[in-house]
Amino acid sequence: MIYITRRETFNAAHRLFKPQWDDEKNLQVFGKCSNPNWHGHNYVLYVSVKGEVDPETGFLVNLKQLSQAIKTEVLEKLDHKNINLEVDFMKNTIPSTENLAIAIWNQLQEPVKQLGAQLHCIKISETENNFAEYYG
Amino acid sequence: MIYITRRETFNAAHRLFKPQWDDEKNLQVFGKCSNPNWHGHNYVLYVSVKGEVDPETGFLVNLKQLSQAIKTEVLEKLDHKNINLEVDFMKNTIPSTENLAIAIWNQLQEPVKQLGAQLHCIKISETENNFAEYYG
Amino acid sequence: MIYITRRETFNAAHRLFKPQWDDEKNLQVFGKCSNPNWHGHNYVLYVSVKGEVDPETGFLVNLKQLSQAIKTEVLEKLDHKNINLEVDFMKNTIPSTENLAIAIWNQLQEPVKQLGAQLHCIKISETENNFAEYYG
Amino acid sequence: MIYITRRETFNAAHRLFKPQWDDEKNLQVFGKCSNPNWHGHNYVLYVSVKGEVDPETGFLVNLKQLSQAIKTEVLEKLDHKNINLEVDFMKNTIPSTENLAIAIWNQLQEPVKQLGAQLHCIKISETENNFAEYYG
Amino acid sequence: MIYITRRETFNAAHRLFKPQWDDEKNLQVFGKCSNPNWHGHNYVLYVSVKGEVDPETGFLVNLKQLSQAIKTEVLEKLDHKNINLEVDFMKNTIPSTENLAIAIWNQLQEPVKQLGAQLHCIKISETENNFAEYYG
Amino acid sequence: MIYITRRETFNAAHRLFKPQWDDEKNLQVFGKCSNPNWHGHNYVLYVSVKGEVDPETGFLVNLKQLSQAIKTEVLEKLDHKNINLEVDFMKNTIPSTENLAIAIWNQLQEPVKQLGAQLHCIKISETENNFAEYYG
Repeated sequence: MIYITRRETFNAAHRLFKPQWDDEKNLQVFGKCSNPNWHGHNYVLYVSVKGEVDPETGFLVNLKQLSQAIKTEVLEKLDHKNINLEVDFMKNTIPSTENLAIAIWNQLQEPVKQLGAQLHCIKISETENNFAEYYG
Repeated sequence: MIYITRRETFNAAHRLFKPQWDDEKNLQVFGKCSNPNWHGHNYVLYVSVKGEVDPETGFLVNLKQLSQAIKTEVLEKLDHKNINLEVDFMKNTIPSTENLAIAIWNQLQEPVKQLGAQLHCIKISETENNFAEYYG
Repeated sequence: MIYITRRETFNAAHRLFKPQWDDEKNLQVFGKCSNPNWHGHNYVLYVSVKGEVDPETGFLVNLKQLSQAIKTEVLEKLDHKNINLEVDFMKNTIPSTENLAIAIWNQLQEPVKQLGAQLHCIKISETENNFAEYYG
Repeated sequence: MIYITRRETFNAAHRLFKPQWDDEKNLQVFGKCSNPNWHGHNYVLYVSVKGEVDPETGFLVNLKQLSQAIKTEVLEKLDHKNINLEVDFMKNTIPSTENLAIAIWNQLQEPVKQLGAQLHCIKISETENNFAEYYG
Repeated sequence: MIYITRRETFNAAHRLFKPQWDDEKNLQVFGKCSNPNWHGHNYVLYVSVKGEVDPETGFLVNLKQLSQAIKTEVLEKLDHKNINLEVDFMKNTIPSTENLAIAIWNQLQEPVKQLGAQLHCIKISETENNFAEYYG
Repeated sequence: MIYITRRETFNAAHRLFKPQWDDEKNLQVFGKCSNPNWHGHNYVLYVSVKGEVDPETGFLVNLKQLSQAIKTEVLEKLDHKNINLEVDFMKNTIPSTENLAIAIWNQLQEPVKQLGAQLHCIKISETENNFAEYYG
């Protein structure tokens, strides 16, 4: 079993916000991350897949194809977007780093399988001081 | 003459947008950076000051005081904010990296003087692949 | 199960030194890390916790509270200190990176539980070329 | 059980190339990585070992000895070399990141055992955007 | 006057080698960097340009156009190539970091002018421990 | 004129402390950096030299020789040392980042001249958030 990881980046706006709560309650729980006028991040995404090395190519998976799958399923939907308003797979979800990791996992699990590998871990860093990891 | 630099970070939302143009023209010039629903960045700010070392302390400037000035004049106004909508010193200014560097220079030139040093350079990085520098 | 990690930094002095050995034996085993006049590092600490996402907040744990716990239990005791002389939870312990990781785990296991999560990993890097990890 | 990791770097030339295929087929599968005139990388290698802390020294393993073993078994054979042509332990192996990780594992498993620890993971990064991990 | 910098990366093989010298003399002067079978690097390139901010756009220069110029004039000729054998603008030049910086300057000076800016600095890093800068 | 920079690292203990002041005054001016039991840092040093490229070698200066000069004149005196107590060229000097930059300049100016280049800049970073630069 070998593991290979592709690093990608995207920039997006978001707001930690629960529609069932008023602004005051949101502010109390989420602090300045709940600013109604949004803020944003340079997210760094690490997609790790696992499986066996193909003796024909020496590859677990062709990284260009993996990168293309991440582009189609994740980056084109998130990059330069507002995560609360514009991202179909984050609808009705508080855009915390934790929830982003889980939602990106769901986006990529099937496409990675079609490349002949298994999704192992989604790691996403929101700032240089925090990141979430999800292993399914 | 010695130079000392303090590194700070802030997260903000913005949109490259010229109000005199319609959305189509904005899109044509600014591309996805003009998304009406905003996007955002983890900005990294480097404030460089110059002057002579105080033989009493070995310091050009007390970095805690410099950091406090940056906090008051820049970070509290930009961090977790929408640069287009909420930042007084960026009003009527397209929030490009270049314009941010110049505006932050204007915010800090006087406070740095009051600490007994001269502002030398504002460097601000928007993503890991681009940054602007302004020397006044 | 989701994992979230908080990165913190601190600066400290230390000396690899076993009081039962004389200076010569210490030097032989620990090399220049045993310098009697101390040396020091910018330590980087990664505290990883695990658990389930709270559907109310989208958080596994509130990172501000986690950061506060790390500050109280670890950073205020280690930052700008001499690890051999001044840190209660490192008393009678050789301040190797390995032992630091284990001791910081012991400091944080209970406070993390009180935040509703489980401590998963303490990773601590002493220089850019080495780090230790402890999983309990 | 504690884990400790040593980071090392080396620079090498390589070419993704399968001798049983002609240049056209190699180009089709490996793209520009198959350039017959070679290209190269600054590889970053992380060697992680595991075991128990020796109460005598506070060490899992003496990092200088680990670093020396990596130097002898891996770096002196790879650094400033052509991986396809000059590295005995990569003979008849396509020099993908995956295969490099596995081959370096095989080089280090026994020497790490002789230092009183167990090899845990070989992580090798080819560019800032991809890395492979092998756990045996 | 404002300065803006674009960071790009490329991977290439090279050999420090002077054809007028035999292998022994090359080895004596250039050490292992003269390996006849090549070695390689992940180069990091910083292209800095200067000029005035266009009040229409807030830009000194459109970074997408700058990035495109770097791609056409530099990256497509260097990325995944052998610098000694395949790069027209490095012909008959020892591929030291210094000479690369100067040659890339010559490639970009005119194209940057056509974008309405002035080339200010080419900085190129060969490893994490060394880089060259050229200001024309 | 070309510029080339070598990056080196060292770890040391220090204390911001003026012997003419009592501990209380030191604490008031220098804060926790004045801890009588010391603290320490992983310093990162960038030595930049300038001059013309030697057409014989393509080098401004042989980086191995530059690195050796830095090792002899700076690293062997600072690495794993107590800057206040053990470093001859920092005697009677408050070990601020500013003063370190100036003192390292004085150590290296002559040796760099003997390598056929001119010292251009000493940049030294004490933490990831601050650095000093000295140009003579």
